[in-house]
Amino acid sequence: MVKKMLLALSCMTILFPVMAFAAGPEAAVLDTGLNSLWIILSFILVLLMQGGFILLEAGSTRMKNAGHVAGKTIFTVGLAALIYWAVGYGIAFGGDLGDNMLNKFIGWGEFFFSPATEMAEGESYTTAVFFLFQLAFAAISLSIAWGGFAERAKLSAYVVFTFVFIAFVYPVVAHWIWGGGWLADHGAQDFAGSTVVHLTGAVAAFAATVLLKPRIGKFNKDGSANEILGHNQVFTALSVLLLWVGWFGFNAGSTVAIGDGFFTYVAFTTMLGAGAGGVAALLISWAAQGKADITTMLNGTLAGLVAITASCAFVDPWSAVVIGLVAGVLVFYSVKLFEKLKVDDPIYALSVHGMAGIWGTLANGIFATQALADKVGVGQGGLIDTGSWKQLWVQFQSVIVAGAFVLVVSFIALGIMKKVIGFRVTEEQEIIGLDLSEHGAYGYPEQLKKPGGDIGV
Amino acid sequence: MVKKMLLALSCMTILFPVMAFAAGPEAAVLDTGLNSLWIILSFILVLLMQGGFILLEAGSTRMKNAGHVAGKTIFTVGLAALIYWAVGYGIAFGGDLGDNMLNKFIGWGEFFFSPATEMAEGESYTTAVFFLFQLAFAAISLSIAWGGFAERAKLSAYVVFTFVFIAFVYPVVAHWIWGGGWLADHGAQDFAGSTVVHLTGAVAAFAATVLLKPRIGKFNKDGSANEILGHNQVFTALSVLLLWVGWFGFNAGSTVAIGDGFFTYVAFTTMLGAGAGGVAALLISWAAQGKADITTMLNGTLAGLVAITASCAFVDPWSAVVIGLVAGVLVFYSVKLFEKLKVDDPIYALSVHGMAGIWGTLANGIFATQALADKVGVGQGGLIDTGSWKQLWVQFQSVIVAGAFVLVVSFIALGIMKKVIGFRVTEEQEIIGLDLSEHGAYGYPEQLKKPGGDIGV
Amino acid sequence: MVKKMLLALSCMTILFPVMAFAAGPEAAVLDTGLNSLWIILSFILVLLMQGGFILLEAGSTRMKNAGHVAGKTIFTVGLAALIYWAVGYGIAFGGDLGDNMLNKFIGWGEFFFSPATEMAEGESYTTAVFFLFQLAFAAISLSIAWGGFAERAKLSAYVVFTFVFIAFVYPVVAHWIWGGGWLADHGAQDFAGSTVVHLTGAVAAFAATVLLKPRIGKFNKDGSANEILGHNQVFTALSVLLLWVGWFGFNAGSTVAIGDGFFTYVAFTTMLGAGAGGVAALLISWAAQGKADITTMLNGTLAGLVAITASCAFVDPWSAVVIGLVAGVLVFYSVKLFEKLKVDDPIYALSVHGMAGIWGTLANGIFATQALADKVGVGQGGLIDTGSWKQLWVQFQSVIVAGAFVLVVSFIALGIMKKVIGFRVTEEQEIIGLDLSEHGAYGYPEQLKKPGGDIGV
Repeated sequence: MVKKMLLALSCMTILFPVMAFAAGPEAAVLDTGLNSLWIILSFILVLLMQGGFILLEAGSTRMKNAGHVAGKTIFTVGLAALIYWAVGYGIAFGGDLGDNMLNKFIGWGEFFFSPATEMAEGESYTTAVFFLFQLAFAAISLSIAWGGFAERAKLSAYVVFTFVFIAFVYPVVAHWIWGGGWLADHGAQDFAGSTVVHLTGAVAAFAATVLLKPRIGKFNKDGSANEILGHNQVFTALSVLLLWVGWFGFNAGSTVAIGDGFFTYVAFTTMLGAGAGGVAALLISWAAQGKADITTMLNGTLAGLVAITASCAFVDPWSAVVIGLVAGVLVFYSVKLFEKLKVDDPIYALSVHGMAGIWGTLANGIFATQALADKVGVGQGGLIDTGSWKQLWVQFQSVIVAGAFVLVVSFIALGIMKKVIGFRVTEEQEIIGLDLSEHGAYGYPEQLKKPGGDIGV
Repeated sequence: MVKKMLLALSCMTILFPVMAFAAGPEAAVLDTGLNSLWIILSFILVLLMQGGFILLEAGSTRMKNAGHVAGKTIFTVGLAALIYWAVGYGIAFGGDLGDNMLNKFIGWGEFFFSPATEMAEGESYTTAVFFLFQLAFAAISLSIAWGGFAERAKLSAYVVFTFVFIAFVYPVVAHWIWGGGWLADHGAQDFAGSTVVHLTGAVAAFAATVLLKPRIGKFNKDGSANEILGHNQVFTALSVLLLWVGWFGFNAGSTVAIGDGFFTYVAFTTMLGAGAGGVAALLISWAAQGKADITTMLNGTLAGLVAITASCAFVDPWSAVVIGLVAGVLVFYSVKLFEKLKVDDPIYALSVHGMAGIWGTLANGIFATQALADKVGVGQGGLIDTGSWKQLWVQFQSVIVAGAFVLVVSFIALGIMKKVIGFRVTEEQEIIGLDLSEHGAYGYPEQLKKPGGDIGV
Repeated sequence: MVKKMLLALSCMTILFPVMAFAAGPEAAVLDTGLNSLWIILSFILVLLMQGGFILLEAGSTRMKNAGHVAGKTIFTVGLAALIYWAVGYGIAFGGDLGDNMLNKFIGWGEFFFSPATEMAEGESYTTAVFFLFQLAFAAISLSIAWGGFAERAKLSAYVVFTFVFIAFVYPVVAHWIWGGGWLADHGAQDFAGSTVVHLTGAVAAFAATVLLKPRIGKFNKDGSANEILGHNQVFTALSVLLLWVGWFGFNAGSTVAIGDGFFTYVAFTTMLGAGAGGVAALLISWAAQGKADITTMLNGTLAGLVAITASCAFVDPWSAVVIGLVAGVLVFYSVKLFEKLKVDDPIYALSVHGMAGIWGTLANGIFATQALADKVGVGQGGLIDTGSWKQLWVQFQSVIVAGAFVLVVSFIALGIMKKVIGFRVTEEQEIIGLDLSEHGAYGYPEQLKKPGGDIGV
């Protein structure tokens, strides 16, 4: 187009030298392209986080279930893509209801989404890349929910719940906060999804693990808990690194723009939150137990990341450190609390994504600065900066409302499924492991094949 | 905007002050930089896919060969880089033959490639980044070919075949379709390499596995097949995730431009194809066997990705789903077919990359829309959109011609090598495993060292 | 640019309607955004290299230490982030000392770094992203240093040395070469850190391994060495791939600009150096031992990468190949040399990062071309291009000076720590392994739990 402009200009005699310089697309096109590039890379980073979940879940569970645990992630991400394409995206972002009041509670339209093949005038990014980014978030929330299913749910339960969660549960919460819904109107601040992604996934995991009941051998008759150790800490350590890496797409990518470079600030606070979480967890476990266990320290890093997710765009660096430190301590005690409550949480989803997700959402109401709230354009500054409890109250509401919605719908859906097709494998199947019982072969056939060998309960 | 501005400008006579205010680089420079950034990231993503191959191949084979299988990928990617730099790139893209008819069949020039250190006027991206991107594709095709060598080829065979494949086999096919060769002239559509990369690699794998003969213990005397299980499904599941992630560089990167944002549409169809492949494979294996096995489901996801690779820029979303679904079903039956034909395909390269590569190339002739073919600027719409069989016929030809070329050259080269230096390790070496026989130490020394232990054939 | 153009235009009365159409950011803003995007991606790639270190270190050590070795990387990266934020960044890049002579030796200021939330006028990238990129480099250097600690250092030693190294040792060297310090003034060329990152880390590793003394069982009474094999070569092979992938952020990202596309040339030489290193190591080990061992070949690839790191922006393609080839041969003999010197180097850090780091730094003085030195703007061409020994002498000096500084400070700090809190676990703890002794649980609980089982010394 600029080229065409030059052709037009070239008839003006004094202007022909300009031609040698002007070329290439307009700034607006470059800007949209640049944003779209950043968002597709963020999508790719968030998809890479599924590799983190594969390793986190497999490493945190036993060898007899490893193939099942790892493989189901690939399958459910694929199924989630199809369902989100057909239905979920339309529930989250479809605009057919217009200004109807109903639209504050649910989106409608854009089913079987067919994006334009190119950017449109005035768009800040393409619709195709926005879809992919949102899909990646939905799939992460789903993978968090699987934490409650681990080592005892039937394969069919994964299929059914993927439908329920991706077509309805997740999109509705996403709509409320990010799709122009009623929580957004109330000023709920959740920059990259402490509530939308992490709390939603964790609450679904909670519903599942309560309905499934604990794994065989987790709790003794006297109520005390046994530790069922995951089989591979190299996997879990690497998983945390992959999640950490991907989280920069998750958080900094949520700016969905390169703009004035704000996305780099968001990445900066994210890094501090993550570091603080891991350090705090290591120290608290060292102090409380006499030994720093690897699992707590890994959980602390993840909890730091989860907690900073809501606030990464809203807080000063020191606040990011404090939010991470608190998350690291919180996750240590939260794991102990759920054990005491006899809730079996194999992948620690309830503590890492649930508790830290709640903390992160509330922390926003405490630490957000007015300046950054203005910059992001949602809600207002928090307790410390403004002295007002208002934003904290708004944050509290969004935790309660989103959590309650997910809990109720998940309980109903999983409860019906439990009645109709069953939810948990048989005791015998659970003992021999899901690799053999659900898929017909061990994931580690050479290591588990030996008679009387390593099939430990 | 600029358009409107130029309307305003065109009535003016005095515009020379404009020149003095140019700040920051020109739009054309930014555009070239933006494209180069996208391509280098795509190169990096495709290189990351080699991590997927390390895990896919190691996980699909036995513990006694794991170090060899994993390590040879690093070595052959390195060797491929040197050979492609010295020779292969020049065969694929060298332009010294000019308009000579010979140039339709082979490129020449640019050997020991020395790119400019900076972009040239009018370039859409730098030559250095184009080289890297093309090299990454060549190396992927090579890693696919290794699927036919697994668990029984001598280390020296890997060295020799890397030379043959990277200096000649792959570059010739790449030249025909992407380097201005005769198949491109015929209108062959292969956006990101269902034929060039996947079919070429798979046909070479086929030649190798036929010449090597099946692994000891794979087939019984009565012709029935034994399943030689891979040793680690966490590795294979993670491998699929890494390949999936990298594939967005592979497919969407093949736009080699940010431009109007079309690359995001390509990523969108790629995601749908991948999801559909995995879901279809899971369901067909569940239906046909009563149990959904993990391996089939993982293969289905990869088959969906391979199949959509040719068509990702040419089809509507629903077509991407159909292409993926068919690929997922196809791969399940293809694996059974090769077993029946007594062809040993350890990593499933023949089914995943071969069969799905053929299907993907043909599918383009069925599902391509005229609008998208016009946009990409290659060939024409397919059967459904245009009612014409022409593009399907062109696609069929390119499968046959490329496949036959690779098959013949690979058979000759590997056949000569077999005579001269040998191709397969001895029976004894194969039984103790290639880690010990070819490299002097187990890849899992602590797990395999025990006498009478886990060295299972 | 367009905006400024509009300002110019706005004084022309007939043009005021144009202003309403201003859209899209200025070229300078786009340029800063583009650079910042490239740098954040480079940061992410370098962070991903920590995944490589997790796998490299865990794979190169024994099962009984795997959880500890893998987990401590997560923890120390997190702690490094906090310390670099609080102190290290200010020592490396703080400018409070102004033109003071002292500033040639140490930076000061910017402690508890609080970056702007958006780009400033005239900035080429944001300060937040520069911080993150530099932090990632510091953390890599630290992970290299851990190579000397492996399998016998107390967990508390990791905490203490992270403080020393990240707050002082690394930042000082970084300041000297990259922060406007005295070595930079002398014309030291170290594009992406062969000296700053690799040599610094390796020298610290050397100090640690000497102070710790060799692992139990490494050397016999007669002075001969035993090979303590790493437990998982799939991990080590994958680690090299991840490091290789991340290295493009490390090297090409060190351009910190998209500009004229030079970053792609830097990636190009990096790829050649890596490939050459692996190929040379494979061939030399094959020739010298009769068998090509996987470990040497993997080390060769890494050594090629380390060596090309100083020179990637300064040399012609053929030089990159030569630098890589030499590095691959060097690493093979270097490993043998350290064994002969009875220095225990579990992760091969001294050879891969130390020797190859020295070679790479010196190689710059041999192979740098004047044209590229002028382009980069540091130092001058090397021996071959200019016939002058001057740059080689400068490079030699920077190796000696930086190496001596790191060695002395590390020895003092670790020596004090050894006296005060102890450095090495007890013999019993070392034999049962650090997973159990330092963290209370095996990283592979199912594989190591068996009585009399696999806890091999």
